[in-house]
Amino acid sequence: MQTLTVELGSRSYPIYIGENLLSRTDLITAHINSQRVVIISNETVAPLYLEQLKLSLTEFNCQEIILPDGEQYKNATTLESIFDALLEQRCPRDSTIIALGGGVVGDITGFASACYQRGVDFIQIPTTLLSQVDSSVGGKTGINHALGKNMIGAFYQPQCVVIDLNTLKTLPARELSAGVAEVIKYGLLADADFFSWLEKNIEKLMQLDPQCVSYAIQTSCQCKADIVASDEQEKSGRRALLNLGHTFGHAIETGMGYGVWLHGEAVACGMALAAEFSARTGWLCAQDVARIKALLAAAKLPTSLPDQLSAKDMLAVMAMDKKVQAGKLNLILLEQIGTAVMTHSYDRALLADMLTQLTSPGQ
Amino acid sequence: MQTLTVELGSRSYPIYIGENLLSRTDLITAHINSQRVVIISNETVAPLYLEQLKLSLTEFNCQEIILPDGEQYKNATTLESIFDALLEQRCPRDSTIIALGGGVVGDITGFASACYQRGVDFIQIPTTLLSQVDSSVGGKTGINHALGKNMIGAFYQPQCVVIDLNTLKTLPARELSAGVAEVIKYGLLADADFFSWLEKNIEKLMQLDPQCVSYAIQTSCQCKADIVASDEQEKSGRRALLNLGHTFGHAIETGMGYGVWLHGEAVACGMALAAEFSARTGWLCAQDVARIKALLAAAKLPTSLPDQLSAKDMLAVMAMDKKVQAGKLNLILLEQIGTAVMTHSYDRALLADMLTQLTSPGQ
Repeated sequence: MQTLTVELGSRSYPIYIGENLLSRTDLITAHINSQRVVIISNETVAPLYLEQLKLSLTEFNCQEIILPDGEQYKNATTLESIFDALLEQRCPRDSTIIALGGGVVGDITGFASACYQRGVDFIQIPTTLLSQVDSSVGGKTGINHALGKNMIGAFYQPQCVVIDLNTLKTLPARELSAGVAEVIKYGLLADADFFSWLEKNIEKLMQLDPQCVSYAIQTSCQCKADIVASDEQEKSGRRALLNLGHTFGHAIETGMGYGVWLHGEAVACGMALAAEFSARTGWLCAQDVARIKALLAAAKLPTSLPDQLSAKDMLAVMAMDKKVQAGKLNLILLEQIGTAVMTHSYDRALLADMLTQLTSPGQ
Repeated sequence: MQTLTVELGSRSYPIYIGENLLSRTDLITAHINSQRVVIISNETVAPLYLEQLKLSLTEFNCQEIILPDGEQYKNATTLESIFDALLEQRCPRDSTIIALGGGVVGDITGFASACYQRGVDFIQIPTTLLSQVDSSVGGKTGINHALGKNMIGAFYQPQCVVIDLNTLKTLPARELSAGVAEVIKYGLLADADFFSWLEKNIEKLMQLDPQCVSYAIQTSCQCKADIVASDEQEKSGRRALLNLGHTFGHAIETGMGYGVWLHGEAVACGMALAAEFSARTGWLCAQDVARIKALLAAAKLPTSLPDQLSAKDMLAVMAMDKKVQAGKLNLILLEQIGTAVMTHSYDRALLADMLTQLTSPGQ
């Protein structure tokens, strides 16, 4: 087992990475401070891993809340159902809530934990590659709104993150690819060597070679932990670099309707667009754009926009991005593979032109 | 004008107290960091003070959201309507939200500000005595749930608090009394001299004598600011002392249905019950209980439970209080006037007996 630490002063916490961690009673219970535990999971993950986790928590008064599965349920209605259940079960403020599932379960559970009685302890047990390398680390929690993804939420850090590599064995291929999109993101924005490693090892990673998977997750989590430690609430701009591909990606997700494209798929396409726009802005060479698209394709990820979206739709959603400051949308672009920058100094007409060219004619 | 400071390191902020502050453009604009301002108020306060405030903000792009008036609207439905409006108006993350109104407006606006895009700046402009001396200071924000008051919320500090004493001139007498309940609370829990001053000056305070009002508000805010600075998130137990009367009070509010009793009325009755129970526990002398009830009565506040509530109802709601730890309900009791303590070492049977005696027979 590997242990990384997210360094946030009094709110620092460990990320445990290894096999069979769901059964490590000692690991999990060290972070629980009372008798009351509530596990929040979903209809897909609960049948696979809930009983195993509960066997590690037999010393606690342990209840569960099972949510429907899908990004389209990451909303105020589901959040309200969690509050109803917590209050009906009379959970006190010293309860610990455990998120067992992918990014949707982790984001909504973290936000519910942040708000319930103004904040109760919570633990992240991410069971998808995407949530293991990205959403479970760093304290961004929240829900979607019909007018924008993750528009309602909180910065709220967990007590610990427990990454059991075994859970990836039941992950559908499409979701594995979606997770690899975020892994590739770290190489692109901060670590050219890791990007090269991914180019060499993408086949083994997609086949869940244990050493490759473990290395990719550790490297990704370390990158994220470093960035979060330096800019927890996205104030200096450094944390915003983690949104590479996300402004385009969120526009795809919102425009298509939540749950139609997986988040990682939308981010993959978003990174291809960010690379393309970086090249058109004169920052990135065409060869690097080709390398990026090739790696995404090798991970079975989309690199072109869905037919249903128009440039106008995309730009309308992008105007609502959280990175809008003083009326200007900041974009995360690439200077080279391994170096991302946030900027609002780009040619808006060029952006509109590119999106018009890359969306279907007649839309 | 007086300026107090809530000392919270990088999140410290000033409380301005004085007359005509709504017109002090300089004061308010110093705390706004972009062009976008949203004022949230309610149907009662907006006709009285919204235009005056907007005249101080003519240099900004200023929009407004008007809520229905009443504790019964401090809920998830109203919160959702605020998010809808903010997103429809395309408010970016660097917007500033201003709460113009009483405790309900301040609490729900603060919570909306905490959650919208994971946190935007907000300013408290409390217009009732209760919100001026209590809810606008200290960063407790939130909404009610059918199963408990303030059960969903966040600790989220404002940029500043602007207390314009002129706004009290339009306050209904019943709401003035409700505010005085929280003023009396500070004397009871922390300052015996202030309690004595209130006994001498209660008539002048109720008649809004300017010097008396100003002194009462300053003393109350300073007491609250000191306690919040020492225990922002209610972890050491010191901040919990501010909940004197609130465990009983919340049970009355929740049991009667939100909005039937004013919050301050319920807290007044709750403080009378806390005093009575402190006496039955052998801590407070009968004479002090009589002084407390006399002062509350002089402020035209209730000191006995409503007929509709049974002891059983009260105890059921109290079991859900946020001060429940390790299965035990902590109560704030009085050792003497000016000295409150939080304790779970009390006789539960004695509590049930007292509530049974003080609620109507047959309920």
